[in-house]
Amino acid sequence: MPPGNPAVDTADVSALLERGRTLSTPVLRAAVDRLAPPMDTVAAYHFGWIDAQGNPTEGDSGKAVRPALALLSAEAAGVAPEVGIPGAVAVELVHNFSLLHDDLMDGDEQRRHRDTVWKVHGPAQAILVGDALFALANEILLELGTVEAGRATRRLTTASRKLIDGQAQDISYEHRERVTVEECLEMEGNKTGALLACAVSIGAVLGGADDRTADKLEEYGYHLGLAFQAVDDLLGIWGDPEATGKQTWSDLRQRKKSLPVVAALAAGGEASERLGELLAADAKSNDFDTFSEEEFAARAALIEEAGGREWTSQEARRQHGRAIEALDEVDMPARVRAQLVALADFVVVRKR
Amino acid sequence: MPPGNPAVDTADVSALLERGRTLSTPVLRAAVDRLAPPMDTVAAYHFGWIDAQGNPTEGDSGKAVRPALALLSAEAAGVAPEVGIPGAVAVELVHNFSLLHDDLMDGDEQRRHRDTVWKVHGPAQAILVGDALFALANEILLELGTVEAGRATRRLTTASRKLIDGQAQDISYEHRERVTVEECLEMEGNKTGALLACAVSIGAVLGGADDRTADKLEEYGYHLGLAFQAVDDLLGIWGDPEATGKQTWSDLRQRKKSLPVVAALAAGGEASERLGELLAADAKSNDFDTFSEEEFAARAALIEEAGGREWTSQEARRQHGRAIEALDEVDMPARVRAQLVALADFVVVRKR
Repeated sequence: MPPGNPAVDTADVSALLERGRTLSTPVLRAAVDRLAPPMDTVAAYHFGWIDAQGNPTEGDSGKAVRPALALLSAEAAGVAPEVGIPGAVAVELVHNFSLLHDDLMDGDEQRRHRDTVWKVHGPAQAILVGDALFALANEILLELGTVEAGRATRRLTTASRKLIDGQAQDISYEHRERVTVEECLEMEGNKTGALLACAVSIGAVLGGADDRTADKLEEYGYHLGLAFQAVDDLLGIWGDPEATGKQTWSDLRQRKKSLPVVAALAAGGEASERLGELLAADAKSNDFDTFSEEEFAARAALIEEAGGREWTSQEARRQHGRAIEALDEVDMPARVRAQLVALADFVVVRKR
Repeated sequence: MPPGNPAVDTADVSALLERGRTLSTPVLRAAVDRLAPPMDTVAAYHFGWIDAQGNPTEGDSGKAVRPALALLSAEAAGVAPEVGIPGAVAVELVHNFSLLHDDLMDGDEQRRHRDTVWKVHGPAQAILVGDALFALANEILLELGTVEAGRATRRLTTASRKLIDGQAQDISYEHRERVTVEECLEMEGNKTGALLACAVSIGAVLGGADDRTADKLEEYGYHLGLAFQAVDDLLGIWGDPEATGKQTWSDLRQRKKSLPVVAALAAGGEASERLGELLAADAKSNDFDTFSEEEFAARAALIEEAGGREWTSQEARRQHGRAIEALDEVDMPARVRAQLVALADFVVVRKR
């Protein structure tokens, strides 16, 4: 699934992600160390720093797109990337708070090839450590004690509320037979767009950027988030399990009404109708849990035939384009702009 | 259980609590109305504004000690009580966030004579709405956009973290055979003292009080919280179910290592040892769930015989005394001081 502009300098993006990880992880770890036992250990397990027995691991700490964005955000406002570090850490804390709670609410047993926290340490710890990370996010910012930190916390709080709204919508859609493409996009904008948007403004706000600049940076981040989620929805059905760490046809197994599904259902035509009948029958089926690979493959083929895969691919490119456009309205160093463009390109070509 | 100073002007305290409720509830309701469906409905059920079918109720909205304190807090700093309203609402939101999550973690099915949210609307909604109220608390404060609001939010965040630490300790103590009196007091200081302390400083901070004044007010609130919790622990065993809305011997049924229990176990002597043996056997018993009233009554009698009830009563008076002492070090209108004293008196004589 190539983006609109396939000229990605992968080496550069890797370096950006690596910088975000290197500068933010020590501060993130110091923050998590503040938690009272056993929450510190549970959080360290969640972040992949230790295994279930408490032994240190060379963990897969995720793509770390958000920290990279928060540092670039500071540079976009003309200050050193380090100014964005508390913002990068706060956003990561909120992101991981939501993962801990969502995995429990959704009953997801695996994340990044590992058992989820509620599965290993029980539901109470998943709730509690999620709460603690959420509080810690605000603490990290507010202890800076500046007016800018107050503004940054306010933006983070707004993003957190949208994140929670998005999860509420996601859960309520699971119980509905039909969800429109618009509803799905609104949910994804809340669940993925809002926090990515905040990552892109938070460093700039900490660096003293005005609200207009911050809003424009958020616009880039919001569309980047929607592009990111469209790609995630494609990977959730057609992704390589080796790369994603998820099961084959993962989202179909979870009956997720993701973009390719709702687009296929909205498309009309023979495949669309056949898909609608199948999914309606699946919703009432008692045998769903024992479905074979072939049965999921058949549903995926219908989604593709009805145009859901292609539409979602195009949607990723559309959102990518709108993200880049938003950048045009912000005055920033040319290098930083190029790096934000490269990150947007990376988001739409990634395989995991 | 009379306090050190039994001269409580009950009418005055009722008026204070009523004022807190009257001024803060409309703002609290407007805040909750911001939540996306179905979270607004779930939250309204939790607050007792509607029943499980969604019909408006004349709800029992709790004692509302915290809002009353937040308004007095503003007056202690020499500003109008209304200045404390956003603080009162934010503290109530954090308090209710913790109730929603704690009831789920603890498996508590009843609160204030009603089914708890997870029981009525499911665990996912209890998690989600708790998260939303927590985020909303910060939002309410930060949208004031002032330096004082940033300072208030920072104090609220610190209190929230302690609240979460306290719940973590509470849960971990349930799995231990012995807990010391000191550990129990530390846990109760985190779980109850920290947020009450914040209620007593937040109005003053919003009114521009300096950190020293705010710290002293928090000292009053912290000891008030410990007195409050000591009384709660007494009511949790010997309270009148009609008044508390809990089962008889409620805390014993939940194997809570509350103050009377840990004090009795620490006291030594025949009754203390007999209690220790019984509770150790209970921990391994498969029949615990079918225990009769008499079996719990026997345990309560042993706690009393070992001195746990009297010690906790004295502890409530000690903390009450230290709360009043802390007030001596803050310059404030005589009327406000008298009202804070009356509230402290009320907290230790209440029956629910």
